[in-house]
Amino acid sequence: MVYITRIEHFNAAHKLFNPKWTPEQNEVVFGKCANENWHGHNFELYVTLKGEPDPETGFVFDVKKLSIIVNEHVIEKLDHKNLNVDVPFMAGKICSSENLVIAIWEQLVPHLPAGVALHCLKLYETPRIFVEYFGN
Amino acid sequence: MVYITRIEHFNAAHKLFNPKWTPEQNEVVFGKCANENWHGHNFELYVTLKGEPDPETGFVFDVKKLSIIVNEHVIEKLDHKNLNVDVPFMAGKICSSENLVIAIWEQLVPHLPAGVALHCLKLYETPRIFVEYFGN
Amino acid sequence: MVYITRIEHFNAAHKLFNPKWTPEQNEVVFGKCANENWHGHNFELYVTLKGEPDPETGFVFDVKKLSIIVNEHVIEKLDHKNLNVDVPFMAGKICSSENLVIAIWEQLVPHLPAGVALHCLKLYETPRIFVEYFGN
Amino acid sequence: MVYITRIEHFNAAHKLFNPKWTPEQNEVVFGKCANENWHGHNFELYVTLKGEPDPETGFVFDVKKLSIIVNEHVIEKLDHKNLNVDVPFMAGKICSSENLVIAIWEQLVPHLPAGVALHCLKLYETPRIFVEYFGN
Amino acid sequence: MVYITRIEHFNAAHKLFNPKWTPEQNEVVFGKCANENWHGHNFELYVTLKGEPDPETGFVFDVKKLSIIVNEHVIEKLDHKNLNVDVPFMAGKICSSENLVIAIWEQLVPHLPAGVALHCLKLYETPRIFVEYFGN
Amino acid sequence: MVYITRIEHFNAAHKLFNPKWTPEQNEVVFGKCANENWHGHNFELYVTLKGEPDPETGFVFDVKKLSIIVNEHVIEKLDHKNLNVDVPFMAGKICSSENLVIAIWEQLVPHLPAGVALHCLKLYETPRIFVEYFGN
Repeated sequence: MVYITRIEHFNAAHKLFNPKWTPEQNEVVFGKCANENWHGHNFELYVTLKGEPDPETGFVFDVKKLSIIVNEHVIEKLDHKNLNVDVPFMAGKICSSENLVIAIWEQLVPHLPAGVALHCLKLYETPRIFVEYFGN
Repeated sequence: MVYITRIEHFNAAHKLFNPKWTPEQNEVVFGKCANENWHGHNFELYVTLKGEPDPETGFVFDVKKLSIIVNEHVIEKLDHKNLNVDVPFMAGKICSSENLVIAIWEQLVPHLPAGVALHCLKLYETPRIFVEYFGN
Repeated sequence: MVYITRIEHFNAAHKLFNPKWTPEQNEVVFGKCANENWHGHNFELYVTLKGEPDPETGFVFDVKKLSIIVNEHVIEKLDHKNLNVDVPFMAGKICSSENLVIAIWEQLVPHLPAGVALHCLKLYETPRIFVEYFGN
Repeated sequence: MVYITRIEHFNAAHKLFNPKWTPEQNEVVFGKCANENWHGHNFELYVTLKGEPDPETGFVFDVKKLSIIVNEHVIEKLDHKNLNVDVPFMAGKICSSENLVIAIWEQLVPHLPAGVALHCLKLYETPRIFVEYFGN
Repeated sequence: MVYITRIEHFNAAHKLFNPKWTPEQNEVVFGKCANENWHGHNFELYVTLKGEPDPETGFVFDVKKLSIIVNEHVIEKLDHKNLNVDVPFMAGKICSSENLVIAIWEQLVPHLPAGVALHCLKLYETPRIFVEYFGN
Repeated sequence: MVYITRIEHFNAAHKLFNPKWTPEQNEVVFGKCANENWHGHNFELYVTLKGEPDPETGFVFDVKKLSIIVNEHVIEKLDHKNLNVDVPFMAGKICSSENLVIAIWEQLVPHLPAGVALHCLKLYETPRIFVEYFGN
């Protein structure tokens, strides 16, 4: 079993807020991240597949094809977007990195070919903060 | 003459648009960067001073003090903000990195002590795009 | 289950030596790292928690609070210190990165709120050497 | 149990091709990576051991010794080489990173001292693509 | 005057050798870099323009357009190529990074629009070696 | 004219203090950096030469030879040392990065071959602080 990872990136705006709370409550919990006029990040997304290398190609999966799939179904929906406003699969969710990485997983899995096992998604929100998700 | 650089960072939302143009013209020129709902970045700001080391301290200028000045007068005004909406010194300017780095220079210089020479500001907008400004 | 990581840093001096050995034996085993006058590093500490995102906040745990806890109970005790001399929780221990990461774990866990699960500590001693510890 | 990682690097040429296929088939599958005149990479190899720190040294294993072993038995055989042509332990294998990381594992393990457990090899082929292998 | 930099990358094979010398002389001078079967690198190319921001766009020059020009006229000619064999503009030149960066300059300048000033090219050959060229 | 840079690294302990001052004065000026028991850093040293590429080799100067010279005359005197205590060429100087980079310049220049022009030294003290020196 070998694990192969492709790193993609996107730039997006977001804010953290819970619509059930007042602005004041949001600021108490989320601080600067609740700024009503948004802030943003350069996100880095690590997509890791696992599998046995194909004897004919030496590949677990062709990373160029992986990149195309991830760009089509994830990056194009997130890059230069507002995560709270522009992204259907984040609708109704608090835009934390934790919720975002789970939503990306759910978004990506149906578009991977049968037999291709997604092992992990890792998402850097800043150079010093990242989340990881293994599918459950 | 020695040059000393301190790196600071901030996260912000922005969009590129010229208010004199229609949304269509803005999209033609700025592409995804014109998304009306904003996008954002993790910015890295390199602040470089030049001078001769003080014989008593070995310092061109104390980088801890430099960091405090830059945080008070620049970072706090930009971090977790919307550059187009929340930042008085960007009002009426197109929020390109070029205009931002010039505006940061003008914002920072009056707050540096007499005799401290600002040499260069370097601003990373993404890991693959940066601007530099030397004051004129 | 989502994993969230916050990276902190500290600068410290140390040396590797076993007080039961002669200086010559220490030099044979530890080489340059046994220099009696110390050497030092910029350490990078990755603190990883695991948990399910809170439906109200989207957070496994607020990384700002995590940063405050790690700074108060770990970084302030290590930053700009001599690991062999100035750090009570390293007293009597050989100051290898392996022993240091275990000691940081033991130091940090009692200060995490009930229900917050520390998953991993990763400690870079140089850009090319790091250790990881999962608590046992 | 503590995990310790040492990072080494090497520069090498390679191409991806399956000798059972025509050049056209190779180009369909491998694209630019099939360029008959080769291309190349700066590879970064992460070697991770696991074990309990020795009470006398604080070491899972001396990383300087690990570096010497990895350099002698892996890096010197790969650095500034053509992976398809110059490396006996890649003979007859498709030079994908997946196959390379498995071959490095098999090459390295016999040269580690008894009792030293190799946990993982991680190999960066570009700054945005890497593979990991845990021995089976 | 503001300087704006865009970073692009390419992977290529090369070797260092002077065709006027014997293989032995080449090995004496170039060492491992003369390996007749080639080696390779992940190159990073920094392209820096200088100019005054356009009042209508805030841009010195649109970095997306710069990226397209650099990719069309430089990166596509170098990426996944053998620098000694596959690249017409390196024909008859020793494939050092010094000669490569000068050749890229000469290749790129005619394709920049009138009035766009190329200030500097910086080329990383490995993470620890780079060259810079300012046009003369 | 082409500029070529080689990056080297060393790990060292130091403290900032002025022997003419009381410990209290040193702490007021230097803060945590004055800790009497030392702290330390992973330093990165960028050594930049300038010149015209030799037509026979394509080199401004052989970076392998440069690396050997820098290691013999600079790195071996600094690596795993205490900058205040173990380094003759820092004796009597305050161990700031500014003073260190000037001293490295003076130490290195006499050991470069005639005709080799040292252009710049850049020294990272932490990932967020660096100094540059051009020889006067």
